[in-house]
Amino acid sequence: MKIVALAGGVGGAKLAHGLAQVLPPEDLTIIVNTGDDFEHYGLYICPDLDTVCYTLAGIANSETGWGRADESWNAVENLSKLGGPDWFKLGDKDLGTHLERTRRLKEGYSLSQITRDFCKAWGIGHTVLPMSDKPVRTFVETDEGELAFQEYFVHRRCEPRVKGFWFDGVDKAEPVRGAREAIQSADAIVICPSNPWASIDPILRVLSPLLSGEGPGVRSVAVSPIIGGETVKGPAAKMFREMGIEPSALAVANHYRGLVTDFVLDEIDAQLIEGIKGLNMRTHVTNTLMKSHEDRKRLAVDMLNFIGRDV
Amino acid sequence: MKIVALAGGVGGAKLAHGLAQVLPPEDLTIIVNTGDDFEHYGLYICPDLDTVCYTLAGIANSETGWGRADESWNAVENLSKLGGPDWFKLGDKDLGTHLERTRRLKEGYSLSQITRDFCKAWGIGHTVLPMSDKPVRTFVETDEGELAFQEYFVHRRCEPRVKGFWFDGVDKAEPVRGAREAIQSADAIVICPSNPWASIDPILRVLSPLLSGEGPGVRSVAVSPIIGGETVKGPAAKMFREMGIEPSALAVANHYRGLVTDFVLDEIDAQLIEGIKGLNMRTHVTNTLMKSHEDRKRLAVDMLNFIGRDV
Repeated sequence: MKIVALAGGVGGAKLAHGLAQVLPPEDLTIIVNTGDDFEHYGLYICPDLDTVCYTLAGIANSETGWGRADESWNAVENLSKLGGPDWFKLGDKDLGTHLERTRRLKEGYSLSQITRDFCKAWGIGHTVLPMSDKPVRTFVETDEGELAFQEYFVHRRCEPRVKGFWFDGVDKAEPVRGAREAIQSADAIVICPSNPWASIDPILRVLSPLLSGEGPGVRSVAVSPIIGGETVKGPAAKMFREMGIEPSALAVANHYRGLVTDFVLDEIDAQLIEGIKGLNMRTHVTNTLMKSHEDRKRLAVDMLNFIGRDV
Repeated sequence: MKIVALAGGVGGAKLAHGLAQVLPPEDLTIIVNTGDDFEHYGLYICPDLDTVCYTLAGIANSETGWGRADESWNAVENLSKLGGPDWFKLGDKDLGTHLERTRRLKEGYSLSQITRDFCKAWGIGHTVLPMSDKPVRTFVETDEGELAFQEYFVHRRCEPRVKGFWFDGVDKAEPVRGAREAIQSADAIVICPSNPWASIDPILRVLSPLLSGEGPGVRSVAVSPIIGGETVKGPAAKMFREMGIEPSALAVANHYRGLVTDFVLDEIDAQLIEGIKGLNMRTHVTNTLMKSHEDRKRLAVDMLNFIGRDV
């Protein structure tokens, strides 16, 4: 079964890793949000792309979910002593990635070429694509004004109340080369349990010219990042609430209404099935919590079986 | 006694540290070569300035003489795995310096302002000045063509044969603010035992409008970086040889002819005294090798006593 997975940060990276454990490289393409990308200290930083790649490569920090395992923090500690802004925790190993990516971008390589080369160096066989080679920047409208995403997310720790989102550059950002072919030959598109507003929406906006043309045979399945009204990690539930929506798997399904044919929700939310079915989606209830590597694989297998079943 | 010391890398930093151990902050200004500065991975790197500051702050690597003590190398190891150029060894702590310096330069601060702030953060009380706030770049003419200094020095390990030097931007680079006042009020200018061609010449070129106006009362003393025909560290002796000059304390004195009134040479070179006196210089013979912190102080005291003596 050929799969295109759309992923943001930690949650998305986990399911992508689960899929990578059960699908051969030629059957899985992971398209990653770059709306969170930003420049810091002159470095071009791609938090979601790095989280996905580090996770697939088995070099991610398993406690935080982001950043590198066995990381050191000497650069950031020392620039902090010099009075530099240290709100974004640049690990030393991680810095190697940012430095080399920035160097190559300045030499004229595209982000997707660089990502392909980095994946090769990290031993990742599956295809990882940034959603576009053109810059898209997520901005958060808050009660304190408009904030660049990392400013909101890391510097302000998601404290300002969210009123909306916009994606600078999204109209000029063509889908990354390779996305069209991957989507056209896919049996299903998987929307990983990432933040619908901040991680998945920018990808959907960029890929929209490709998604609208899907034939009826292409399934599209979303896995709810909201379990029991809360997120495992990240501000998605808080965002729903601040935008006046009760956070739930149903709210997520409603968010993807018209786009998604199949929906996977956690056992704890089984009572929401009828509501989701009312949105014209097939539903599957399972344990969606991914605490271990085995959990990732189990959820991937479970979801692939669900998609593969006849209606 | 008020001193202005001109310094390049390791040898210069050691004597500057010796002087800093015996002179109060208001009596010592250290003007440092920036001709070796370069951009690497988009970072603005000042090898000599950092070596001097790290040495004064007591955070230099005492084995190499350059870089930070207790350094880690995670960033460079990881960018190397990604195929990035790793010939310049960027330590993680050191990276903190380069990142913050580069960030401030982009914000519009001058190199001398940044250096002053960094010195404060590192607990350095004496004044450390880059020779100019304008960029000067040392190029080495070699038998393999013209090479940027770090390309010659680090990447090519000083292998190409040297034919000459030129300093790009030197004619437009005004002396750093504060250099004039320091030189005018100085009792002596000390040329530290740094590379005459690559470290001291660029400083002298930049400061020449200030040095030509010195009154007869201002002593200028050079300490030979050549001991027994060789350098303790670095390519100065090799450079002399490749330019057809037998490397010796006499050759160094001859290099500074007309500029220097006093010359300090090592005991091992005592037989060269008459030749150096013939260049119209007072001479002082002492142990110039600086292996320990005590050696640095001893040489500084010895040299200051020599300068302070009546002729």
